[in-house]
Amino acid sequence: MNHVVVTDVPRPPAEDLDELAGFGVATVHEAMGRIGLVGTSVLPLQQGARIAGSAVTALCWPGDNLMIHAAVEQCLPGDVLVVTTVSPSLDGSFGELLATALVQRGVRALVTTGGVRDVVDLREMGFPVWSGAQNAQGTVKATPGSVNVPITVGGTVIRPGDAVVADDDGVLCVPRAGIGEALAASRARVEKEAVAREAYQRGELSLDRNKLRGLLDDLGVRYVTAAEHDAG
Amino acid sequence: MNHVVVTDVPRPPAEDLDELAGFGVATVHEAMGRIGLVGTSVLPLQQGARIAGSAVTALCWPGDNLMIHAAVEQCLPGDVLVVTTVSPSLDGSFGELLATALVQRGVRALVTTGGVRDVVDLREMGFPVWSGAQNAQGTVKATPGSVNVPITVGGTVIRPGDAVVADDDGVLCVPRAGIGEALAASRARVEKEAVAREAYQRGELSLDRNKLRGLLDDLGVRYVTAAEHDAG
Amino acid sequence: MNHVVVTDVPRPPAEDLDELAGFGVATVHEAMGRIGLVGTSVLPLQQGARIAGSAVTALCWPGDNLMIHAAVEQCLPGDVLVVTTVSPSLDGSFGELLATALVQRGVRALVTTGGVRDVVDLREMGFPVWSGAQNAQGTVKATPGSVNVPITVGGTVIRPGDAVVADDDGVLCVPRAGIGEALAASRARVEKEAVAREAYQRGELSLDRNKLRGLLDDLGVRYVTAAEHDAG
Amino acid sequence: MNHVVVTDVPRPPAEDLDELAGFGVATVHEAMGRIGLVGTSVLPLQQGARIAGSAVTALCWPGDNLMIHAAVEQCLPGDVLVVTTVSPSLDGSFGELLATALVQRGVRALVTTGGVRDVVDLREMGFPVWSGAQNAQGTVKATPGSVNVPITVGGTVIRPGDAVVADDDGVLCVPRAGIGEALAASRARVEKEAVAREAYQRGELSLDRNKLRGLLDDLGVRYVTAAEHDAG
Amino acid sequence: MNHVVVTDVPRPPAEDLDELAGFGVATVHEAMGRIGLVGTSVLPLQQGARIAGSAVTALCWPGDNLMIHAAVEQCLPGDVLVVTTVSPSLDGSFGELLATALVQRGVRALVTTGGVRDVVDLREMGFPVWSGAQNAQGTVKATPGSVNVPITVGGTVIRPGDAVVADDDGVLCVPRAGIGEALAASRARVEKEAVAREAYQRGELSLDRNKLRGLLDDLGVRYVTAAEHDAG
Amino acid sequence: MNHVVVTDVPRPPAEDLDELAGFGVATVHEAMGRIGLVGTSVLPLQQGARIAGSAVTALCWPGDNLMIHAAVEQCLPGDVLVVTTVSPSLDGSFGELLATALVQRGVRALVTTGGVRDVVDLREMGFPVWSGAQNAQGTVKATPGSVNVPITVGGTVIRPGDAVVADDDGVLCVPRAGIGEALAASRARVEKEAVAREAYQRGELSLDRNKLRGLLDDLGVRYVTAAEHDAG
Repeated sequence: MNHVVVTDVPRPPAEDLDELAGFGVATVHEAMGRIGLVGTSVLPLQQGARIAGSAVTALCWPGDNLMIHAAVEQCLPGDVLVVTTVSPSLDGSFGELLATALVQRGVRALVTTGGVRDVVDLREMGFPVWSGAQNAQGTVKATPGSVNVPITVGGTVIRPGDAVVADDDGVLCVPRAGIGEALAASRARVEKEAVAREAYQRGELSLDRNKLRGLLDDLGVRYVTAAEHDAG
Repeated sequence: MNHVVVTDVPRPPAEDLDELAGFGVATVHEAMGRIGLVGTSVLPLQQGARIAGSAVTALCWPGDNLMIHAAVEQCLPGDVLVVTTVSPSLDGSFGELLATALVQRGVRALVTTGGVRDVVDLREMGFPVWSGAQNAQGTVKATPGSVNVPITVGGTVIRPGDAVVADDDGVLCVPRAGIGEALAASRARVEKEAVAREAYQRGELSLDRNKLRGLLDDLGVRYVTAAEHDAG
Repeated sequence: MNHVVVTDVPRPPAEDLDELAGFGVATVHEAMGRIGLVGTSVLPLQQGARIAGSAVTALCWPGDNLMIHAAVEQCLPGDVLVVTTVSPSLDGSFGELLATALVQRGVRALVTTGGVRDVVDLREMGFPVWSGAQNAQGTVKATPGSVNVPITVGGTVIRPGDAVVADDDGVLCVPRAGIGEALAASRARVEKEAVAREAYQRGELSLDRNKLRGLLDDLGVRYVTAAEHDAG
Repeated sequence: MNHVVVTDVPRPPAEDLDELAGFGVATVHEAMGRIGLVGTSVLPLQQGARIAGSAVTALCWPGDNLMIHAAVEQCLPGDVLVVTTVSPSLDGSFGELLATALVQRGVRALVTTGGVRDVVDLREMGFPVWSGAQNAQGTVKATPGSVNVPITVGGTVIRPGDAVVADDDGVLCVPRAGIGEALAASRARVEKEAVAREAYQRGELSLDRNKLRGLLDDLGVRYVTAAEHDAG
Repeated sequence: MNHVVVTDVPRPPAEDLDELAGFGVATVHEAMGRIGLVGTSVLPLQQGARIAGSAVTALCWPGDNLMIHAAVEQCLPGDVLVVTTVSPSLDGSFGELLATALVQRGVRALVTTGGVRDVVDLREMGFPVWSGAQNAQGTVKATPGSVNVPITVGGTVIRPGDAVVADDDGVLCVPRAGIGEALAASRARVEKEAVAREAYQRGELSLDRNKLRGLLDDLGVRYVTAAEHDAG
Repeated sequence: MNHVVVTDVPRPPAEDLDELAGFGVATVHEAMGRIGLVGTSVLPLQQGARIAGSAVTALCWPGDNLMIHAAVEQCLPGDVLVVTTVSPSLDGSFGELLATALVQRGVRALVTTGGVRDVVDLREMGFPVWSGAQNAQGTVKATPGSVNVPITVGGTVIRPGDAVVADDDGVLCVPRAGIGEALAASRARVEKEAVAREAYQRGELSLDRNKLRGLLDDLGVRYVTAAEHDAG
């Protein structure tokens, strides 16, 4: 493995990131065709935060946060720092001092498969974090890794400059080249959902709205009363 | 497996459900003889909610929410929708649109071994949820299942029309035929606990109140000072 | 296994406990040389609590809370009750009545590898808890164990009279004999971090502050532009 | 919870059990409509064993094997002892002495969500076991439970007198009333699979045999060459 | 998500695959710079098998094996079929009939994050499998996916035509373009290890051979006798 | 944390270790009063091995095996090397070359919470291993730790010079000072079990032999026929 820090990574337009954040994870994920999530092991440290940013990636050795320090320098306003380790580790490789440095650089959030500490301070600062654990366990700075190389988080590849969207539903990666398409599909989806919401509020059933009764019948699902079923 | 949607399920009286909700999960569970819990993998999405309702059950294929749509139609005011999958799945098969439909029908809560999404919206709506995960992962509508058949959630069988009680301590199933007995025992337990609470506030010890000193002695537990123990 | 309740355990000075609480888990853990944490399976039931106390330990049989009742009597003001089981168990062996008894005795918090219940009440009482689960599952009082013997919680040995520090970053054990040294090192660390924080707020990089550029170079980490990296 | 030992449980005919064992878990599970499995947390202690027997159930307290001792007396030749605990426990509640007693009574196997010990001896005896763990951790005999009541193992309800089938694919419960139907469907399935096997050995594709090409097309799956795909 | 079956994927030379298999997973992984492993959740079904093949990938919906059937047709002699699901699923989507079809086509092994069944038969056939579980749970054929697109298995991206190496140490992906380099480095490593092995058999210490004594000293590790340490 | 390598650790007599190995884990664990096990996450790599040795301990940083190299030098014939990491790590920090060095020094086995690799070779060498995983993932030699300090493995403290017993039932630590007592109690237990085994082979019930019928009655367990039970 060659260890590199890649500089000058192209970023998506800020207005695209802002629009993605407005839609939120579930909407963009559906609009993209149900791909791109990093899975349920990376959880929000707070409630209600909803962000999108351009990924700066850091690939660290377990128990070692050297490359997070190197990654800070590569961060620009509007970025999200995304950290993972070569093998699974929940050590607390990130805390309030690093968050202070990121805030100073205009970074929007941290996403990490590892642990974070100084949780009280992070919450007070209002710096949004999605992480694998709350964990005070300290790390060293002894082993090399890379910054701004493609990494895999929970089964999803994140490349530097991809858009990362995160809220209480999880963390989503939108590849940089697919942002325009994702936005267009999200806009359409939001419109369609607004109509559906109104219908459901009026009492229409999704069975009817989505024409699922015929499908149930085709699949052999039968309707029986409880009395018939008990007589069975 | 025959796939059915069972209609016209008998429900427990609304006042019984309300009284169960007032007692909460821990009290009713103890009063029933320490049975009926669905276990620690189904967690509250919010803090402080305490509900009871009549179970409408949905058994789905993993990655598929077709039968949740069919279940909505079977829900009446005072019901709790209880969802599980044939094999383990944390996909986000339920979100804000389905919650909107359930609220419209007077449903009190969702309990699911699967995932939920649109978590921000669900919390804002104040619709209580106990689930296996917060997960944006979308599902399809392609595979049949059943509604209002007995299902197993975390080792506990839930039948349609059973009472489901849920709060921050977990989710409990009270079989319909056992609700009267559970209520009587809960009332007795609450009274007994009130007396014990007062005694503990005065400084009485549970060792004395529960007459445990003799038991400790019978079981061979000895009291030694730290000095004796270190010398030991 | 001889079952004992050890009485008259020596405690650390109250002012030392208070100062440890002020520093918090991450700072003291680092100051001690990155040891003493109980790991990520014991989680706070609340947000923002930060306590330190003298450990009273209880070693229970799974599914049995008899020895918690015995432990209550051994608790003094300023103590933290620390509970574990002989083999893994998340049963709800602790609830509001036991908390009431502990509060009456001036106990500061509960740390348990097991489960707790009456979570709504515990939060309302403001009694801080770190536990393995929220779980209504009840326990019996039938099997002996010990109070105030050394126990192991998540890989860390806790002895009666050790200082236990806990906050949103986890739970830390400071051996009684090492409290003075831990305090001194924590004071130094806090001062050093204050200077670093200010530097980061001004935009200084940790790479420079910690002199990590040379290390990266020694370890073979190369800086390349995205264009160079893509060219391969 | 009333604690009972239920005696004189009706059993399925021995020849039905033998025929189920011959088919094995996967075949009977499919023939029943893909239900009845106890899930992947109960694993075989040996390779290649394939048994079926009539269930004798034991419901124990965690860390306690009192009710296994009570269950032994209820076992008859051709039975399978099925053990679970009120809450999760992997303690080694079963070992070689209990296996000796079961072998003497003609019991065919043990299925337990808990742990077993004396694994070397159990393997030498050739007594088949499916369990949650290999674990020397000892248990006590102090807390009541029940024998021959319905229990839930990994999401599947097992009633005394149900047929339990087990092999390297897992553990399956066939309700007593459904054995005849399961056998008939298994016979049909085995015949059909024999024809399919031969076809596949000749090189026929399951895509063609199961007429899946049209389905793929309906679902929008397109065939493209690698060159076309890369051109994207 | 566009669903495609990609045909005509280029493969690595057969002699390269055979040489990779000869080296085994640990050696090639080290030679590549400690990358490429799929992690510890995919385990061998047998002991002692060591294979390498060209990846044919299948991306399935959970609980659905439709795309495995489509993938069979794309398999050529020397291939390894690699299967994963869009979200986690351990259902038994693969069994003896599919293995029969793969053997007929000259496929060397199956690697799947899902479950397999007919384990007794698979072992008898000698068809090597690395899987997420042994699980009889059946699947349906209802939902589309893709064949021969890049997939992620346990954090490692596998592309069609990459070399997959597997043995009792795990499963490794060698990107097609990197096979030559991996082979050269593996050859060098094997030679170096043979010399080291001989030295260790003679009693030389790795501390000396790898010149680690100075490093220990630099890192502040001190040597003390047990007597000194106890006095410490 | 001060990093040390402790030399000249006192060992138990070889004949005591041999006698412990003869008894095996379950017997000695029971004889000691059901304590000392390291839990179910450290599993045997082979079947049927049963060893005992004097512990040499190594405490490593995650992803780093530097201290294993330092530990090899401290090993003498009859020792067992016991390895853990400061925070959880399943990386493959041990393989065939290190095993070769240990065999050369007369070491009896490896116990590690981490991973091992070259599993095929380790099994062929007949070197017994109990580990947390089979995992090719390589480690570095960059971070200090300690050798022959007390470590905690799965909740049990192991001190250098303690006896470690391991077989298919798990791994047990017998503190050096308690070996004599453990042996005496094990001898008594084996004799008692031989008598019980013979009784069970003759058909005597453990209910009678252990006088459990009265206890069941005292605990309120009632005997009812299936007919009575169904009648409710």
